[in-house]
Amino acid sequence: MTHQIIQDLSNRYTTKKFDASKKVSPDDLAVIMEAMRLSASSINSQPWKFIVIESDAAKQRMHNTFANKFQFNQPHVMTASHIIIFAHNPAYTRANYEAVIDKGIADLRTKPEDKEAAFGAFAFVELNTGEDGDTSAWTKAQTYLALGNTMHTLARLNIDSTPMEGIDTDLVGKEFAVELDGYVTDVALAIGYRDAENDYNITPPKSRLAMADVIVKL
Amino acid sequence: MTHQIIQDLSNRYTTKKFDASKKVSPDDLAVIMEAMRLSASSINSQPWKFIVIESDAAKQRMHNTFANKFQFNQPHVMTASHIIIFAHNPAYTRANYEAVIDKGIADLRTKPEDKEAAFGAFAFVELNTGEDGDTSAWTKAQTYLALGNTMHTLARLNIDSTPMEGIDTDLVGKEFAVELDGYVTDVALAIGYRDAENDYNITPPKSRLAMADVIVKL
Repeated sequence: MTHQIIQDLSNRYTTKKFDASKKVSPDDLAVIMEAMRLSASSINSQPWKFIVIESDAAKQRMHNTFANKFQFNQPHVMTASHIIIFAHNPAYTRANYEAVIDKGIADLRTKPEDKEAAFGAFAFVELNTGEDGDTSAWTKAQTYLALGNTMHTLARLNIDSTPMEGIDTDLVGKEFAVELDGYVTDVALAIGYRDAENDYNITPPKSRLAMADVIVKL
Repeated sequence: MTHQIIQDLSNRYTTKKFDASKKVSPDDLAVIMEAMRLSASSINSQPWKFIVIESDAAKQRMHNTFANKFQFNQPHVMTASHIIIFAHNPAYTRANYEAVIDKGIADLRTKPEDKEAAFGAFAFVELNTGEDGDTSAWTKAQTYLALGNTMHTLARLNIDSTPMEGIDTDLVGKEFAVELDGYVTDVALAIGYRDAENDYNITPPKSRLAMADVIVKL
């Protein structure tokens, strides 16, 4: 299929070796961050924080979190252009949603007199909250929606990336406790440019299950 | 920001009223389905099924599932062009991953003699499996990654959509039990074209939390 969308998604692959000399431009990074911010989420909940690691000092902090495990991902920290930590709110509350509604009022999307009515959508949070107040399965899913949007954005920009569930969530949580502010992460995304001569994962063809095994058309 | 990516994501919105006379073309639908199939997932697990509802008979079945709740979404079933059910595997097993590896061998991505080594990545599933074999939080997240990719694809194609967590998961599960084949769903996506004169949600400006509230740049 020759459509540009299919070309973009076919060319995307999980980079295994980055070229440390190539950095994402400030203009492209601005597009990426704005695309992340514009990601859709259930009831516009936006139950996420994105930590964008750019400086050498922050990269060193991220590098340190690979002390105990997933060392196969550690080289990406220093060779990729940026690392983005995707974090979700494990206990999304009415106060969190009030911030969304208040921003909607500030953006002239919602009328001030409709504020109470706007809380009606919070029923979706209640449906997805465990007895202990845990909303993780729901907020994590929203955050992966943002990840899918971000990865498509990167494919369009011809920027390479490596999604990494192979991070030490405990150590990342401790190292970036201040920035995470109670949010938790299960995944980070390294972005940058492939080392075209030394990345073994460029050549192997992409593989996906057959259409008939994943799509039922009725 | 005038970048095409930002324009596409800014123009996307949750459609509240579809024009029943406008249908997604077969060519566009083929791009959408292939884009869905190409979605990335952890260890290429692809723990999903996508049920694409196109025929009047299938729409009637979906329509019936709104008998008890979320009736505000029911009109979309008959007025949107297609409804896509996003379902995840609640108990992803080694046999599921073997199908992925075998397809990798068939696609000449993985050498047959490397099959056992390829199972090494299955450790990520074990990390995300509860004592009862439940992998839902992990597989649901992957499926939302595909949803994010799909919604970005639709934005590029200027096709409107409505993501719906407001579906009766019990009734959908029963009505489509054969097609779901043990998979479960928390979300469906209506796609089609807006009723430009009667959709109240076209005019209000998009609202998102401020950059500083969702992104920390280090």
